[in-house]
Amino acid sequence: MTVANSASVSSPLSSEELHKINAYWSAANYLSVGQIYLRDNPLLKQPLKIEHIKPRLLGHWGTTPGLNFIYAHFNRLICRYDLNCIYIAGPGHGGPGMVANTYLEGSYSEFYPHITQDAEGMDKLFTQFSYPGGIPSHAAPETPGSIHEGGELGYSIAHAYGAAFDNPDLLVCCVVGDGEAETGALATSWHSNKFLNPARDGAVLPILHLNGYKISNPTVLARLSDRELEHLFIGYGYKPYFVEGDDPETMHQLMAATLDEIVQEIQGIQREARTHGFKERSQFPMLILRTPKGWTGPKIVDGVQIENTYRAHQVPLAETASKPDHLRMLEDWMRSYKPEELFDETGRLIPELAELAPKGDRRMGANPHANGGLLLRDLNLPKFEKYAVPVDAPGQVETESTRVLGKFLRDVMVQNQANQNFRVFSPDENNSNRLNAVLEATDRVFTGEILPNDDHIAIDGRVMEILSEHLCQGWLEGYLLTGRHGFFSCYEAFIHIVDSMFNQHAKWLEACRHIVWRRPIASLNYLLTSHVWRQDHNGFTHQDPGFIDVVMNKKPTVTRVYLPPDANTLLSVAAHCLKSRHYVNVIVAGKQPQLQWLDMESAIAHCTAGLGIWDWASNDRGSEPDVVLVSAGDVPTLEALAAVDFLRAHFPELKIRFVNVVDLMTLQPQSEHPHGLSDRDFDSIFTTNKPVIFAFHGYPWLVHRLTYRRTNHHNIHVRGYKEEGTTTTPFDMVVLNDLDRFHLAQDVIDRVPKLTNVGGYVKQIARDKLTKHKRYIVEHGRDMPEVEDWKWQYYSGSNAEKQVIPQTDGNSPIQQAEDLARSAY
Amino acid sequence: MTVANSASVSSPLSSEELHKINAYWSAANYLSVGQIYLRDNPLLKQPLKIEHIKPRLLGHWGTTPGLNFIYAHFNRLICRYDLNCIYIAGPGHGGPGMVANTYLEGSYSEFYPHITQDAEGMDKLFTQFSYPGGIPSHAAPETPGSIHEGGELGYSIAHAYGAAFDNPDLLVCCVVGDGEAETGALATSWHSNKFLNPARDGAVLPILHLNGYKISNPTVLARLSDRELEHLFIGYGYKPYFVEGDDPETMHQLMAATLDEIVQEIQGIQREARTHGFKERSQFPMLILRTPKGWTGPKIVDGVQIENTYRAHQVPLAETASKPDHLRMLEDWMRSYKPEELFDETGRLIPELAELAPKGDRRMGANPHANGGLLLRDLNLPKFEKYAVPVDAPGQVETESTRVLGKFLRDVMVQNQANQNFRVFSPDENNSNRLNAVLEATDRVFTGEILPNDDHIAIDGRVMEILSEHLCQGWLEGYLLTGRHGFFSCYEAFIHIVDSMFNQHAKWLEACRHIVWRRPIASLNYLLTSHVWRQDHNGFTHQDPGFIDVVMNKKPTVTRVYLPPDANTLLSVAAHCLKSRHYVNVIVAGKQPQLQWLDMESAIAHCTAGLGIWDWASNDRGSEPDVVLVSAGDVPTLEALAAVDFLRAHFPELKIRFVNVVDLMTLQPQSEHPHGLSDRDFDSIFTTNKPVIFAFHGYPWLVHRLTYRRTNHHNIHVRGYKEEGTTTTPFDMVVLNDLDRFHLAQDVIDRVPKLTNVGGYVKQIARDKLTKHKRYIVEHGRDMPEVEDWKWQYYSGSNAEKQVIPQTDGNSPIQQAEDLARSAY
Repeated sequence: MTVANSASVSSPLSSEELHKINAYWSAANYLSVGQIYLRDNPLLKQPLKIEHIKPRLLGHWGTTPGLNFIYAHFNRLICRYDLNCIYIAGPGHGGPGMVANTYLEGSYSEFYPHITQDAEGMDKLFTQFSYPGGIPSHAAPETPGSIHEGGELGYSIAHAYGAAFDNPDLLVCCVVGDGEAETGALATSWHSNKFLNPARDGAVLPILHLNGYKISNPTVLARLSDRELEHLFIGYGYKPYFVEGDDPETMHQLMAATLDEIVQEIQGIQREARTHGFKERSQFPMLILRTPKGWTGPKIVDGVQIENTYRAHQVPLAETASKPDHLRMLEDWMRSYKPEELFDETGRLIPELAELAPKGDRRMGANPHANGGLLLRDLNLPKFEKYAVPVDAPGQVETESTRVLGKFLRDVMVQNQANQNFRVFSPDENNSNRLNAVLEATDRVFTGEILPNDDHIAIDGRVMEILSEHLCQGWLEGYLLTGRHGFFSCYEAFIHIVDSMFNQHAKWLEACRHIVWRRPIASLNYLLTSHVWRQDHNGFTHQDPGFIDVVMNKKPTVTRVYLPPDANTLLSVAAHCLKSRHYVNVIVAGKQPQLQWLDMESAIAHCTAGLGIWDWASNDRGSEPDVVLVSAGDVPTLEALAAVDFLRAHFPELKIRFVNVVDLMTLQPQSEHPHGLSDRDFDSIFTTNKPVIFAFHGYPWLVHRLTYRRTNHHNIHVRGYKEEGTTTTPFDMVVLNDLDRFHLAQDVIDRVPKLTNVGGYVKQIARDKLTKHKRYIVEHGRDMPEVEDWKWQYYSGSNAEKQVIPQTDGNSPIQQAEDLARSAY
Repeated sequence: MTVANSASVSSPLSSEELHKINAYWSAANYLSVGQIYLRDNPLLKQPLKIEHIKPRLLGHWGTTPGLNFIYAHFNRLICRYDLNCIYIAGPGHGGPGMVANTYLEGSYSEFYPHITQDAEGMDKLFTQFSYPGGIPSHAAPETPGSIHEGGELGYSIAHAYGAAFDNPDLLVCCVVGDGEAETGALATSWHSNKFLNPARDGAVLPILHLNGYKISNPTVLARLSDRELEHLFIGYGYKPYFVEGDDPETMHQLMAATLDEIVQEIQGIQREARTHGFKERSQFPMLILRTPKGWTGPKIVDGVQIENTYRAHQVPLAETASKPDHLRMLEDWMRSYKPEELFDETGRLIPELAELAPKGDRRMGANPHANGGLLLRDLNLPKFEKYAVPVDAPGQVETESTRVLGKFLRDVMVQNQANQNFRVFSPDENNSNRLNAVLEATDRVFTGEILPNDDHIAIDGRVMEILSEHLCQGWLEGYLLTGRHGFFSCYEAFIHIVDSMFNQHAKWLEACRHIVWRRPIASLNYLLTSHVWRQDHNGFTHQDPGFIDVVMNKKPTVTRVYLPPDANTLLSVAAHCLKSRHYVNVIVAGKQPQLQWLDMESAIAHCTAGLGIWDWASNDRGSEPDVVLVSAGDVPTLEALAAVDFLRAHFPELKIRFVNVVDLMTLQPQSEHPHGLSDRDFDSIFTTNKPVIFAFHGYPWLVHRLTYRRTNHHNIHVRGYKEEGTTTTPFDMVVLNDLDRFHLAQDVIDRVPKLTNVGGYVKQIARDKLTKHKRYIVEHGRDMPEVEDWKWQYYSGSNAEKQVIPQTDGNSPIQQAEDLARSAY
């Protein structure tokens, strides 16, 4: 264990270099303070007056000088070693610092030509910050070089590793705030190093920035001794270096020396792995930087210590408008950076300092990896039709749909192996979700110890599995944001763990749509499986279809939700999602064996439309239907079709239209979502006045929310999940939620006027079936055979009418009642 | 650093003790296997046949023997040291083990008298497991002694510390699965030790159970060397002990010796802190237990290794029905535990083993701390009316509502200080959320290093702050589940971080409602502030009102959502929530200065009703209204009232009814939620046919979801948040989302028939105001004065009519247009 500290390192900077790097840092600090406070007089050519100050002081100073310090030193490193670096500012509140640095290096003005590198540009730069119509206070999508906002904290390290995977030349400088470091997501992210292979991946340099305080509390990690910190990070698998202090000159030397050592060490690890092959997980360096919060800012204000306390978190001199001495202190503070020595008369950074920045794409604000759409290449997708499940007639054969998808994904993996731009992510559920076939093409990656009994674990696999939805999501985001593709499969209930990460990613995507220089990236594709209706092992805790509700709250421009009812529709949808750009696509599909409905041709047509009438399941052709049965989701589709069967057996003359919805967004008005069906089309499918019985995968009110503006909304009756669970047989689960075929059939009888007088018998039959079922499962521990073995028995294709002869199930008392009911109709 | 290992410890168990503890463990293992496989022949008195096997094999064997091993050794510890212990099974899938142990110790049969301690009871015990109508496969609410389900992984340590806080005599045995340990929540939970004070709190013994595998992957931590693990946990602040092996006899000795040492060490730390005062954070012991996955189960099946691989995760012999040799192997496996030596002829555990279990409440299945409702005492609440903001007339004075609430919470803290049963939780936002007054009564707790400049940080504080929503939530859940009270304040957007934890807690509460022996616990109270409409510093990332959508998906029996529009309603609601039981209460209220509307008497009446007409803001008394304006949430209420003002100024004869909704659940039909208004009452307030303009705090469709069954639903027009953000002035934020007063006024004009012909001018005025506003904020960086300084100008109390003289704002061109419009009406 080697730990660098101030005693053991040399002073690599000449006094000129030292002076310059400090001046560069001062310039960044000056511009940061300017953004928070000023709307005029940017170069302080006049004495500072109230009218130069923004009316509302917003932003965060505390973390900024540290971020600027790191940025300046990374500029030096990039130039010295010709590095390819991006900068992730975990403390997202340090937005002014990122803006200041990209402005200094010139990338800012290239993206925003009106923010020129002169006094006028600087004035605009200051004014726009955290100002109406201006820019956010974080390292936001608007910030050049940023792939990480940090509004919600905790994801910097995960993003950094996601960016580094399959980017062998990239070094990600990842600054972690000591507040952020307390979050769950960040605390587990350190373990990402067990998934990084220096032979094929780039490197992450985590810099834990201990500035000691959050909004009003000390940070936990800053109150650990260096000894405990050292243990912690060695335990996490790193080699920790410490840079600690507050004297700028000492700190510059220490930082430069330490970073030199670190870069050489990283390059050594990479050289070794790339020359002689990866042998064992290396202890990559990480840096612990301890500097005062609000470093170089006001030390004491109104008799109270500011610098190096929580009081430096936001705006240290907040009352400049009412307290003249605050205004004076602000001026002193800003002048302490000596702007007149940093900027020339026109307001441009003097050449001696400007030359410290890297050139062109090496500038961290201009690095294309931070605008991943620039680097994005299409996936080479196999024809998904190849993987079609043969469906000669609907509802006859059972298949595990996700297992079929696995084969497609396997070949996506194969065909893009050479490009190294596709990975599959899952929280230890790849196999459980039946995507096993992917492992025929690649392994799971792990760079820790691998044992002989391990299943498809290798140092160069492309399946990323760790039992942390946060890490899967964060890695994938980082991977996508730097221009690659991915696929995330997850148990449906537990995807809620990353609700907030999804929220933030969707916001990022939406914001990018309004930034002309940001190129679209690959969509974030979720497969939610092991879903609410089939949790045979698990029960209530594993039952939650609510993620799609969360998704539907975000901008329609960036969100898509698909509920393919079988394997062929799943293939069609998944291929579409992998081709798409700049969306979050959510696919919900079960992994259990289930009846298949559509052949591939029909599946493609159906998915293309998003929803449609299933002719073969309907008997209303050439006439108005008496009722519309709708399904969305695989299990609801099964139940709704079984309800149709039950109804047609008892009421052969009842005209039933069967509609299936794959693309949930079609239900919304066109004005709300680009996929929304026109009202005219909606009315023609759902009618304007017939009862509509909707069997829905999720919480029922989502359908109401989507359809409340539709003409026939008041006739839509939805059955879905309503937090009734904890059972262990498939059919019993739908029974518990009244979403089963027998309830659906009763709904129809209750709502179709012409069944009012004749439906009583059949309702009684349906109720009896349910009673029988409940007794059966308690006795036998499984669903009753007539349910378990049910198959679709009518088939009328669009060309030929085929009909399977309906089978009766004997002459039981119930059968007699059914016969009676049928004759009564 | 001292680490126990096999070489350095003694053999504390006599050979008889060793034999007995191993037999007890065997009995638990036997019962665990029986639950997974059998539905008959529980004691194997006959050779095992297919018909004895359950038709569907569900459950998880892999983690169970380890859980049983720990349980047996904790029984010994409890007896030996007279300990007060509860057991948290992080690997929740080990449900069979928890059931087996509580059955062996007798607590199970006390809670479930039909599961007797004999062959018949054992048969039922086996059959019910993971069976329709039976019990879940996890350590669920149904499991005696459990406060932690573990269906969703990651919260065991947080729950354990929550239970230990303010329970000085409690020792929480917390088993952490090595899969679970990869989650974010768990990874940061280890830092909970910096918030535990051994002088007043109990202790947690974390046992990291490395059984090496998840569903199909190795675990990350199991692949660390002992050296790295040691570093990691020393870094986390613990003293790690190791117990590793697979030979039962050796392991029993090692485990007994190590636990003896650990208990004495914990007691030593506590004695020292309680005798001489807390000096500095101690290194509490933690245990790393490395045993094979599926220990004692089948070693090799079909030529493949099972024990100590991922294949032991669920059901190792899954094909007993089709493969006769599997059935034989199952029988051999079960007989290897020698049931005939463990249970007597009747099927009862033999007395020599039964006596190993603790007695009465010392049994971990019977410990009242694990059924916290038993221990729950009411809070001694101050009269909240005392804290009322004086409101002589509505809309005249501004107050920060949460700051007022802080004073109430301060005194709740004071009045319950002696009972040590109330804590306040926040992710570093207590002060930011303006609850500062609480710190007058107590400090923030921190047991790490405290520095002179720290603000109200102390070892015995009762405010718990760490920048981890997961930990705040997890601690609070553990605290509530063991019979105490709490209050969690959080930024609204980031509460989504714990969506899934909320989901699981709500499911837990709901499940408990159906378990007669589970007593109701205190409600989990959220205050969501720093909300979507006022994120002046932060912008888009901090804007998300969707948590209430997530909450509304859970069972109405356990969920409540309140949107108090001002300080007095907030006080009334908060006091109500602190008195309530067994709910999740969500209160959404802003922290910024805002106009106050109701005096305390009106506030109480209004909150009691949940929603109501505000007479003083309406002018439809004695007549039918032309329009109903509704608001829910503080900012929407302000805008809606300002819209009323604008409309009344222009259309004095327009009859406006103003309704405010505090309790969101009132909007639902009575059939959906106990707070739901009857249709009759709803119709009388919202009318059956008048336009309703609804200004809503959250996403607008939530209102539609709640009201779609109401008579007048098709007339309800909702404005809410629609993912338009990133601004830095309060009014501009509502403008971006079209929720401002001028849009609301235009809505009214558009929808009230009698304004059709006369409204054009006024609409133009409203549009002009918006244009003027947008230009104003860009120029001045703040909202225009007529908005910023707006106050309510009409006041007609229920007794006396008061009216503030409306003020005109000069004779501007706009004013002239207004005058024109007014005369036109």
